[in-house]
Amino acid sequence: MILVLKNGTKEEEILKIREMLDKYGIQVNSIVGQSTTVLGLVGDTTVLDINSIYLNKNVEKIIKVQEPYKKANKKLHPENTVIKVGNMEIGGPNVVVMAGPCSVESREQIIDIARNVNDEGASILRGGAWKPRTSPYSFQGLKADGLELLNLAKDETGMPIVSEITNAAHIEMFLDSVDIFQIGARNMQNFELLKEVGKTNKPVLLKRGFSNTLEELLMSAEYIMSEGNEDVILCERGIRSFETYTRNTLDISAIPALKKLSHLPVIVDPSHAAGMNWMVEPLSMAAVAAGADGLIIEVHNDPANALCDGAQSLTYGEFKETMRKLKMIANTVGRTM
Amino acid sequence: MILVLKNGTKEEEILKIREMLDKYGIQVNSIVGQSTTVLGLVGDTTVLDINSIYLNKNVEKIIKVQEPYKKANKKLHPENTVIKVGNMEIGGPNVVVMAGPCSVESREQIIDIARNVNDEGASILRGGAWKPRTSPYSFQGLKADGLELLNLAKDETGMPIVSEITNAAHIEMFLDSVDIFQIGARNMQNFELLKEVGKTNKPVLLKRGFSNTLEELLMSAEYIMSEGNEDVILCERGIRSFETYTRNTLDISAIPALKKLSHLPVIVDPSHAAGMNWMVEPLSMAAVAAGADGLIIEVHNDPANALCDGAQSLTYGEFKETMRKLKMIANTVGRTM
Amino acid sequence: MILVLKNGTKEEEILKIREMLDKYGIQVNSIVGQSTTVLGLVGDTTVLDINSIYLNKNVEKIIKVQEPYKKANKKLHPENTVIKVGNMEIGGPNVVVMAGPCSVESREQIIDIARNVNDEGASILRGGAWKPRTSPYSFQGLKADGLELLNLAKDETGMPIVSEITNAAHIEMFLDSVDIFQIGARNMQNFELLKEVGKTNKPVLLKRGFSNTLEELLMSAEYIMSEGNEDVILCERGIRSFETYTRNTLDISAIPALKKLSHLPVIVDPSHAAGMNWMVEPLSMAAVAAGADGLIIEVHNDPANALCDGAQSLTYGEFKETMRKLKMIANTVGRTM
Amino acid sequence: MILVLKNGTKEEEILKIREMLDKYGIQVNSIVGQSTTVLGLVGDTTVLDINSIYLNKNVEKIIKVQEPYKKANKKLHPENTVIKVGNMEIGGPNVVVMAGPCSVESREQIIDIARNVNDEGASILRGGAWKPRTSPYSFQGLKADGLELLNLAKDETGMPIVSEITNAAHIEMFLDSVDIFQIGARNMQNFELLKEVGKTNKPVLLKRGFSNTLEELLMSAEYIMSEGNEDVILCERGIRSFETYTRNTLDISAIPALKKLSHLPVIVDPSHAAGMNWMVEPLSMAAVAAGADGLIIEVHNDPANALCDGAQSLTYGEFKETMRKLKMIANTVGRTM
Repeated sequence: MILVLKNGTKEEEILKIREMLDKYGIQVNSIVGQSTTVLGLVGDTTVLDINSIYLNKNVEKIIKVQEPYKKANKKLHPENTVIKVGNMEIGGPNVVVMAGPCSVESREQIIDIARNVNDEGASILRGGAWKPRTSPYSFQGLKADGLELLNLAKDETGMPIVSEITNAAHIEMFLDSVDIFQIGARNMQNFELLKEVGKTNKPVLLKRGFSNTLEELLMSAEYIMSEGNEDVILCERGIRSFETYTRNTLDISAIPALKKLSHLPVIVDPSHAAGMNWMVEPLSMAAVAAGADGLIIEVHNDPANALCDGAQSLTYGEFKETMRKLKMIANTVGRTM
Repeated sequence: MILVLKNGTKEEEILKIREMLDKYGIQVNSIVGQSTTVLGLVGDTTVLDINSIYLNKNVEKIIKVQEPYKKANKKLHPENTVIKVGNMEIGGPNVVVMAGPCSVESREQIIDIARNVNDEGASILRGGAWKPRTSPYSFQGLKADGLELLNLAKDETGMPIVSEITNAAHIEMFLDSVDIFQIGARNMQNFELLKEVGKTNKPVLLKRGFSNTLEELLMSAEYIMSEGNEDVILCERGIRSFETYTRNTLDISAIPALKKLSHLPVIVDPSHAAGMNWMVEPLSMAAVAAGADGLIIEVHNDPANALCDGAQSLTYGEFKETMRKLKMIANTVGRTM
Repeated sequence: MILVLKNGTKEEEILKIREMLDKYGIQVNSIVGQSTTVLGLVGDTTVLDINSIYLNKNVEKIIKVQEPYKKANKKLHPENTVIKVGNMEIGGPNVVVMAGPCSVESREQIIDIARNVNDEGASILRGGAWKPRTSPYSFQGLKADGLELLNLAKDETGMPIVSEITNAAHIEMFLDSVDIFQIGARNMQNFELLKEVGKTNKPVLLKRGFSNTLEELLMSAEYIMSEGNEDVILCERGIRSFETYTRNTLDISAIPALKKLSHLPVIVDPSHAAGMNWMVEPLSMAAVAAGADGLIIEVHNDPANALCDGAQSLTYGEFKETMRKLKMIANTVGRTM
Repeated sequence: MILVLKNGTKEEEILKIREMLDKYGIQVNSIVGQSTTVLGLVGDTTVLDINSIYLNKNVEKIIKVQEPYKKANKKLHPENTVIKVGNMEIGGPNVVVMAGPCSVESREQIIDIARNVNDEGASILRGGAWKPRTSPYSFQGLKADGLELLNLAKDETGMPIVSEITNAAHIEMFLDSVDIFQIGARNMQNFELLKEVGKTNKPVLLKRGFSNTLEELLMSAEYIMSEGNEDVILCERGIRSFETYTRNTLDISAIPALKKLSHLPVIVDPSHAAGMNWMVEPLSMAAVAAGADGLIIEVHNDPANALCDGAQSLTYGEFKETMRKLKMIANTVGRTM
């Protein structure tokens, strides 16, 4: 950590800062410039409260030199994490596709979709049971019944299940019913929930909040990992910008950025990013071309009558065609699919 | 609701749409323009899933004419809501100031701060017991002990308490300990939590998420109100923009906008918006000048040693001076304080 | 255009609005809903000033049904525009790569870079002569000398030239020296400049402003096209968002969006979007996978000593490797390169 | 300037960096931490190209310690600048109001408006002659005739004139016709234009681009000042955020921030920020409460028939009432008006 002092800070004031830092076992090296003095802090600066240092009347700026995340940090864990789910590996050479409806609606629906996406190469079944909706008047999901139906579809197809958890009180139920916990964008900083899934040993698919920075995403991964669960899958799903043509702006650069900063697998959700089904194919192709480890795609047997997010769901035919093209892109970038 | 159809949509296709809408009891009036046909829907369109309509190959655009929030909507409840807390009223002619530390740290601290801010005219005591922090390695609050200490300060000063709840499992404990539930910005769309506080009869201070629109804020208020609790206080606390000089960008226009759209009281948190103590005074003055019903301000006995958010906390002296100026502004705009 | 009237607007007020619109030759159809009346306007509504209509005390909302751009609109010109530059075509099956340094620095530099990028498959030479820099103290380009050096490099390699024009007073000089005018992001709404290049018959590469919507980009294209010059190449180069890890956020969805809305060719500038050379390759690959018609990439013989934007420039070796991979992606999506 | 080196950078590599910097006369002090080495650069680092330093394979991060603007910097010019226009002072104790129509439309219109706003206490007349509009099909202003009409209004009322210049070729004409050059938001980084007005000795009202940071605004002021013209008035007029309820988001914190960073006067344009006339009053009051040195407000004799921006223009009655309240706020914060 580096402290930039205000012009004209007196020697005695600098001494006081040194003494304060000394209490925390932090060594201070100073650089005296033409008009500015800079203090370089050596030691474990995570024990300091940055905000309080700002209050020192002589401190103009504080600069963090090291990333605040540790367990998620590639510098400290250079090898990429590969997460096993059933007989699949996420983060390895294979590009993994998770597919299914926005929300589970009925036994027939979920089994039919599962069979179809499985036939086209999807290996994990997604489906919402609890649905966080902007309006209290919108369909909120089948809840516990939804989890049961997902398991019927799993029995039929062998596909592992990923489904969103929105309440720490549901942990036990989800532990019995899903293979991957999904933390939705709106709950990315619901730290109470993060800590709870961190205490389990099931993989967690952590979606980036639509207005959270990459560093904040990695800090939320850190919340899970610091409780013991290191199997976190990062998911870019579009961020909020001034542009309103798309529902969100897919931050395609998040893929190479996260792969550089962290050892965790990175997948992309093109369906929520675009919010329009015709854009899912080009965004999926872009994501794989940019190095994504997987995709999570909404597919529905009858999008026009979907109880939620129909506008962004692919039909079976569209999904088949998208998968055909994705395999070609995956092979081009040296991956299997 | 209005549907704009694609150029060249055939009569028979329009007929199909009419029939589909008819099932929901919705009447359709059409306007045939030079190149575009527009359908005006009359009836309760909240039963429709908008996304699914988009999938109709002939629909180009859907336009919502009415706001999706009802209980929070000023059009339907033209009279302003005034919320009673102890012997105070929020949303009436008086500008209410809530003040206190970011987090409760000790008995001495919280009692000392409570006495001081009370002396200067603050009427509600704020203080965090559970602290949602970006980093799992930061101080997370005194939790249940914090609530107890807040109540000691309440006993001393008579000030009602507002404190943030982050977990639905804590509802009972908070019901016994606080006078106003605070829902923090990161939990504005934690719908499970909103529904739970909506089932109680205590006022809820609902902070705007740092990347949520005003409509989303009002929809979150609607979540609380639709469960039966209509005592919601809206709080603008800064939004995330490209500008990084301030921690957040205080959206001052949210005050007149929310007062126009809703009958609920609107307060402002200048401390989190700015993130810098020297900016709290001008932003507070601006908020009252623009019509805010109150403020929530961080004050600390010793900001330089605060366990959290010291950089944005006022000292007693700064708070005193800010209150002096605020009273003058309040009087200028015809309010008491 | 649709006008949503306020609840309770009286018949006589509606009549007044009808009469006002009648003056402009606009027919009005009304839809009377439960609580809202909606007026559908039929006729050429571009003659109306929308802002003034808002002032009618009875108008709650105005909804534009048609896009405000015409010449750039795919609906009105369904066939894609293909722009010829020398013997190349932009917007056809071939993916065109423009490459070169941020700024022209010397005869040796520009000729050496031109030869190298040409050898690797780039077909148009980019190079800045006038450089708009945030700081007045930064290198501002070689100006007229830069244009001359670019032409020496053209003589050597036969590559057409694209270079940024920042001042309408330079039009004559640029007409003699470049094959494509470049309008930079900061000048996307410098309408005086747009009108001037619109009066020429040279292709214009129009960069999206870093905070401009797709509609605004198309309106700026419209400024050029409405003066007679319809050869506009749209360029996505990253937008400003809250994320600061990258210099800008590449809006990858702009590619499919612009291809759907407009018939104009769409290229991508991954260098300015990322601001970091190691990210140029994955972003370029994503862009071609998503359907871009071309790329504009910064390449430098000695990035570490570049007078501008060295950090985002590729070395010859990096460019060669990027081109190798891009060709594979281009072929995978059915294009030549 | 501070360079953070990558973990494990070798001594010999550090030596090379030192030697490189030595060439520029820059001294290097190093701080060797547990895992990171940091180099503090002492000397005039403005001669360095930051981007190129990034390319050194051993440099992880570069941190600028000093603001890049000098002439606009309050640290170097602690005394506030007061700009004289006629017998008025901008930046002194008086809060200055500039008022008038979005665009000049006719002799009668501009004279009538000038008289009215002057009567209510406005001291400078605004009015657009060249109007930069998003659409080429919108009214573009009366141009030279508009300047003439403004001068007729000046003859009648004695009010100095501020009007927007959009083209460096118009400098001479504007020098003869206006008292303050206005640089609009879209031209804030039209550096060619900035340099030209910088060569004159007339005050310049520089509007912040709707997506420009405060630092970029100050760098644009620096462009003008470095050419010799130090009479720059900064203007906050709303920034682009994700919120679409208002046309722009007024960044109220820009006022105290700019007053802290710079010695230049700061005014606010509430009309363009809100885009809705009913919001102009509360935003104006907030701006003066937060310390603005002035306001620029759109007023029109007949907003419903204005040729541009009618929706945000005040009527005479609204302006009168706004001025009455503004005077009270100004007095409350210790200023005249």
